Amino acid sequence: MKRAYTGLSSAIFSLLLGLVASHVYAQQPPVAIAIHGGAGTLTRDAITPEQDAAYREILGRLVDLGHQKLLNGDAGLDVVVDIIQALEESPLFNAGVGAVLTWEGQHELDAAIMEGYSLRAGAVAGVKTVRSPIAAARAVMLASPHVMLAGPGAEAFANEQGLQMVDNSVFTTERRSQALLRYKAQQQAGITPVVDTKFGTVGVVVLDTAGNLVAGTSTGGMTGKRWGRIGDAPVIGAGTYANNASCAVSATGHGEYFIRHQVASDICARVQYLGVSIAIAANQVILGDLVEVGGDGGVIAVDAQGNVAMPFNTEGMYRASIDGLGNRIVAIYGEGE
Amino acid sequence: MKRAYTGLSSAIFSLLLGLVASHVYAQQPPVAIAIHGGAGTLTRDAITPEQDAAYREILGRLVDLGHQKLLNGDAGLDVVVDIIQALEESPLFNAGVGAVLTWEGQHELDAAIMEGYSLRAGAVAGVKTVRSPIAAARAVMLASPHVMLAGPGAEAFANEQGLQMVDNSVFTTERRSQALLRYKAQQQAGITPVVDTKFGTVGVVVLDTAGNLVAGTSTGGMTGKRWGRIGDAPVIGAGTYANNASCAVSATGHGEYFIRHQVASDICARVQYLGVSIAIAANQVILGDLVEVGGDGGVIAVDAQGNVAMPFNTEGMYRASIDGLGNRIVAIYGEGE
Repeated sequence: MKRAYTGLSSAIFSLLLGLVASHVYAQQPPVAIAIHGGAGTLTRDAITPEQDAAYREILGRLVDLGHQKLLNGDAGLDVVVDIIQALEESPLFNAGVGAVLTWEGQHELDAAIMEGYSLRAGAVAGVKTVRSPIAAARAVMLASPHVMLAGPGAEAFANEQGLQMVDNSVFTTERRSQALLRYKAQQQAGITPVVDTKFGTVGVVVLDTAGNLVAGTSTGGMTGKRWGRIGDAPVIGAGTYANNASCAVSATGHGEYFIRHQVASDICARVQYLGVSIAIAANQVILGDLVEVGGDGGVIAVDAQGNVAMPFNTEGMYRASIDGLGNRIVAIYGEGE
Repeated sequence: MKRAYTGLSSAIFSLLLGLVASHVYAQQPPVAIAIHGGAGTLTRDAITPEQDAAYREILGRLVDLGHQKLLNGDAGLDVVVDIIQALEESPLFNAGVGAVLTWEGQHELDAAIMEGYSLRAGAVAGVKTVRSPIAAARAVMLASPHVMLAGPGAEAFANEQGLQMVDNSVFTTERRSQALLRYKAQQQAGITPVVDTKFGTVGVVVLDTAGNLVAGTSTGGMTGKRWGRIGDAPVIGAGTYANNASCAVSATGHGEYFIRHQVASDICARVQYLGVSIAIAANQVILGDLVEVGGDGGVIAVDAQGNVAMPFNTEGMYRASIDGLGNRIVAIYGEGE
């Protein structure tokens, strides 16, 4: 009898605990995060097992770190900047250290950040000496009356704001120097250069505990770029967009198509005006419109419910996510891999 | 009898002529054009009768010229560039000659153009020595693989393309020099400067006989701007956008708000996805969303049927239009004036 009583008591206790836990879970606002490290001709043949493991390690580590910060109640804006800074510091990606080189052998870095609650945004284009372009973008948003600053003016502003300034060569890696040499040799031989389509642009989108959506993107642009070319990353609405009424998006790919097609804001407009899910909206744009015109690339997107979509029309996209239900993905190639 | 016969014959002839004419008119595809020369605190008190007449004269002359070119079958792209170049050459507007001065006393000019059939686009930001920024934007679109070029790189590209290069001082006018002096004096006295809200950005949108929608914008930005600030004009989707599926829009106003709210592409997204008219879509954005956040300015918009909308939330906007039915407007202040 004692034993039966204990058993019954234990069962009731478990039931109550379950009710309390599910109540707490339901009360806890969802958080979500998605990260990309670029899309392109990423196939198993082109990537060594060591490279594969290195990319998965950093993507997995950073998505877990960002998720934990969000669970701790950190503001989405800070989480996006923190995680992108870690990607900027990694030579694996085309942002900050490891950025590609321009035709003149320099690094011209672009970044943008946008917050969906206020529609505040900040962007820098063509900066050469700011250690963290995403931090400069945040400073533009928070400490200037402007949204977009470019070139030496943007650097002067970042310097006034006390951001760390470095020599341009800090960003240079052997791999990118070789890529520029190959590109220039092909150009000068009259061969259409095999464009480095492993676009390593990095981006992060999050939903934080306050229900705020934030998107950020940082990139070195295209190998061999000229004439002060600005790609989609720092163009609000093209490579970066966030609006609490719809979604937050960061893009990676052939930037000119992403500007012309307003990729980030078009996905959010479809969510807001057509009432479709971010998965459908992102697929329509990335697997529909962009494929029709040959616009290679992909996006990460998150909505106010914590749903995540990460479509791409290339062989692969370095990506990782933890959605509002806790589902975790770290992947490089096609779905399920 | 002869006379009655003649009268009858004449009546029949007139009837036939009318039928033929209306048939020809119905067969003739509609063309439409709208022009703006900036929005701001434009009231009858602030503008002398001579200034009023001068603005109306150039706006009326150019809208008629552009309309005639469209009727002649000229491509929308050429008409937009031709009319904007005339506005750039006029010292009355904040674009090209007559552009405002930066904090450093220079002119940094921005322009963009987009064509709705192909979604091709070109933009330049922060150019100092290109005589016609809108021509440079068209060259970026037609002769480069890029959409957006900035600073000295954009100038090098324009020079390679054979565009006319000039000394920066060519754009300077006494009126703008005085405006900068006032602005700096107020800033340095710790007074919040009375922002020159007569934003004189210029823009043109057209529907041509091929059914193509084109939008273009050219500007000197804001008096006293610093740090390589880029406004909305050269940002595709913010100040300039065209898509044959919806509309063509050129904006003028407080650029930061126009970037954050994706004004030009949001108006077109509402037309495309919500199925509302350009008048409703443009009013929702300009008189609704932007008013809520204090984003001063206005737009001109045209759709594929030749409808024109020109809402603004400031006291006035220099504007002129001839819609697909031939209705002609030249105005500065509120509706009907």
